[in-house]
Amino acid sequence: MTVIQVTTATKAYQVQLSDHGLTKIGQAVSAVWTPRQVALITDTNVGPHYAPAVTANLQAAGYRVTVLTIPAGEASKSWAQVERLTAMLSAAQFTRSDGILALGGGVVGDLAGFVAAIYLRGISLIQVPTSLLAQVDSSVGGKTAIDLPTGKNLIGSFYQPDLVLIDPATLTTLPARSLAEGYGEILKCAAIVGGDFWQLAGQITDLSALLAHAAALITASVQFKTQVVMADEKESDQRQLLNLGHTIGHAVELLGQGQWMHGEAVAIGLVQVCRLFEAHQLTAKGTAAQLAMRLHAVGLPTELPAALSPAKLIAAMQHDKKVHGDQLTWVYLQQIGTATFHQVPVANLMTWVAPILTK
Amino acid sequence: MTVIQVTTATKAYQVQLSDHGLTKIGQAVSAVWTPRQVALITDTNVGPHYAPAVTANLQAAGYRVTVLTIPAGEASKSWAQVERLTAMLSAAQFTRSDGILALGGGVVGDLAGFVAAIYLRGISLIQVPTSLLAQVDSSVGGKTAIDLPTGKNLIGSFYQPDLVLIDPATLTTLPARSLAEGYGEILKCAAIVGGDFWQLAGQITDLSALLAHAAALITASVQFKTQVVMADEKESDQRQLLNLGHTIGHAVELLGQGQWMHGEAVAIGLVQVCRLFEAHQLTAKGTAAQLAMRLHAVGLPTELPAALSPAKLIAAMQHDKKVHGDQLTWVYLQQIGTATFHQVPVANLMTWVAPILTK
Repeated sequence: MTVIQVTTATKAYQVQLSDHGLTKIGQAVSAVWTPRQVALITDTNVGPHYAPAVTANLQAAGYRVTVLTIPAGEASKSWAQVERLTAMLSAAQFTRSDGILALGGGVVGDLAGFVAAIYLRGISLIQVPTSLLAQVDSSVGGKTAIDLPTGKNLIGSFYQPDLVLIDPATLTTLPARSLAEGYGEILKCAAIVGGDFWQLAGQITDLSALLAHAAALITASVQFKTQVVMADEKESDQRQLLNLGHTIGHAVELLGQGQWMHGEAVAIGLVQVCRLFEAHQLTAKGTAAQLAMRLHAVGLPTELPAALSPAKLIAAMQHDKKVHGDQLTWVYLQQIGTATFHQVPVANLMTWVAPILTK
Repeated sequence: MTVIQVTTATKAYQVQLSDHGLTKIGQAVSAVWTPRQVALITDTNVGPHYAPAVTANLQAAGYRVTVLTIPAGEASKSWAQVERLTAMLSAAQFTRSDGILALGGGVVGDLAGFVAAIYLRGISLIQVPTSLLAQVDSSVGGKTAIDLPTGKNLIGSFYQPDLVLIDPATLTTLPARSLAEGYGEILKCAAIVGGDFWQLAGQITDLSALLAHAAALITASVQFKTQVVMADEKESDQRQLLNLGHTIGHAVELLGQGQWMHGEAVAIGLVQVCRLFEAHQLTAKGTAAQLAMRLHAVGLPTELPAALSPAKLIAAMQHDKKVHGDQLTWVYLQQIGTATFHQVPVANLMTWVAPILTK
């Protein structure tokens, strides 16, 4: 088992990476939680694979488990699901001594984490991410969220779990497309960190290589992410580095209306932001091409959809959380291993983004 | 101007008490906020009195102001209003550099505070409480909340404002019943603190005495509350003292379905918890009578409604946030000036509460 210690201003907890860790989940939970009611929040994809065994394992460890299942998919990050889940917790008389265990991908983790953050002003939370994307990204760092019609993750809070339990064995039941999407976020981390991590990414020539190296890639990504989060829990500066590729990525994802998965949109965003900053001579020539080659290896997209209207893309970017006042803060790579910030006035965005829209 | 400094683990800010302070609000806000978009959230009662002047004053200080008005009344502490307000903020392109100013009573403060806590995972907040209840209670301490059908304040978060601005002059436009209700929370503080504060309460023989001593009573209440909040921001122990009278009070308020205002329900809860603990010989004889006399002086109720079903009262208490596992934690007075805790198993509640239900 690999243990990564996370210490923030408000909390200390562990990210545990353990192959087949789900088969001993009761034991892991017992180390941080006294006996209590547990709401196991999962979705219609993940629940059938793992919820019965996880429930039995938790019950054997002395927990009273209620399984709450949400429809799989981004549409569940909604006010309607928050309202439904909190009503169910209240009906089952969950108190501040009880807890929520999120078993699933990023949608489950974001939604269940937000519910844990606001129910009775906060009850305890354990994250058990089962998708590669959630394992390397959304389960670490304490961000919780739901979406608004105007944009993704516009509602949420910072809320740290008591434990993050990552079982790479869950990746074997993941559809190929979901596996690949997780690699979008991994490659983002590798590009920011550079060095050995970037070299390791060079060995991922197809999906089976990705599965074979999953534990090492997840560990490297989580170590990088926790390091950034520890330095800056509330996203005022360093943490924004993690938004590399996300300004264009979020806009593509929003406008695609479900056509692109998050990691796919980030893959597009990563290559496009490098191409854009290469055009502005702020990123080393050839960086976009190197990223594109590694992303293509697992089948990820890297090109802006031809049908995408520039005006809509710009409008979608303006709802981005990275807009402060009248400035949009971009994260970009000077070169592999060196990420930093660049501000562009919102009023100039159309002109500034033109190099990737008009080629 | 009286300034009370609040320093919590996450933030330092001031509670400023200033007679006619609303007429210089732009100046006060400028001391903590750079120029930005401000959502002035108010309600249909308070807005007509103060929103136009406050807006003009803020505009003169360089702020772009959008007034968002909610229907007055507890029913606005709802998912529907949270959804509506966040959608409006997003439509007006509010960013993390913008802010929310809550102008109104407890409903406005609780709701607007919750919206500030979760919109973009938190934007800046200033509380301008205009009711006596909000001035002494809900605006101080960083609690934000909305209600569920199963109980009040079951959803929310801890979120500290950048400034709390209290203008006692706003009390002159408050209906008599609302003024009296605020005194319920003030007397709760006075009973816990004892000494000079309790003596001062002895001088409040009617509503005009309450108005005449409002600044001193608010200051004493806020000083006590901030002291408790600073010692214990997250309500794990000391802060629960503030729940004196609230276990019965919340249940009465919930079951009354709008018949009782919060401070009225607390007044009932204060006297009833003393009577209950006197019966169990844990509170000094005569304490309930002393509280009742002071509450009656401003016209507050102190008796449980005759129609209240004991079974419903017990059931409502079990949804209380003060239930931990299978124990309900009561706050009670050993005597005026000495408050502490007593746990009762939820299973025994009916028998335990019988002395006030069967007399």
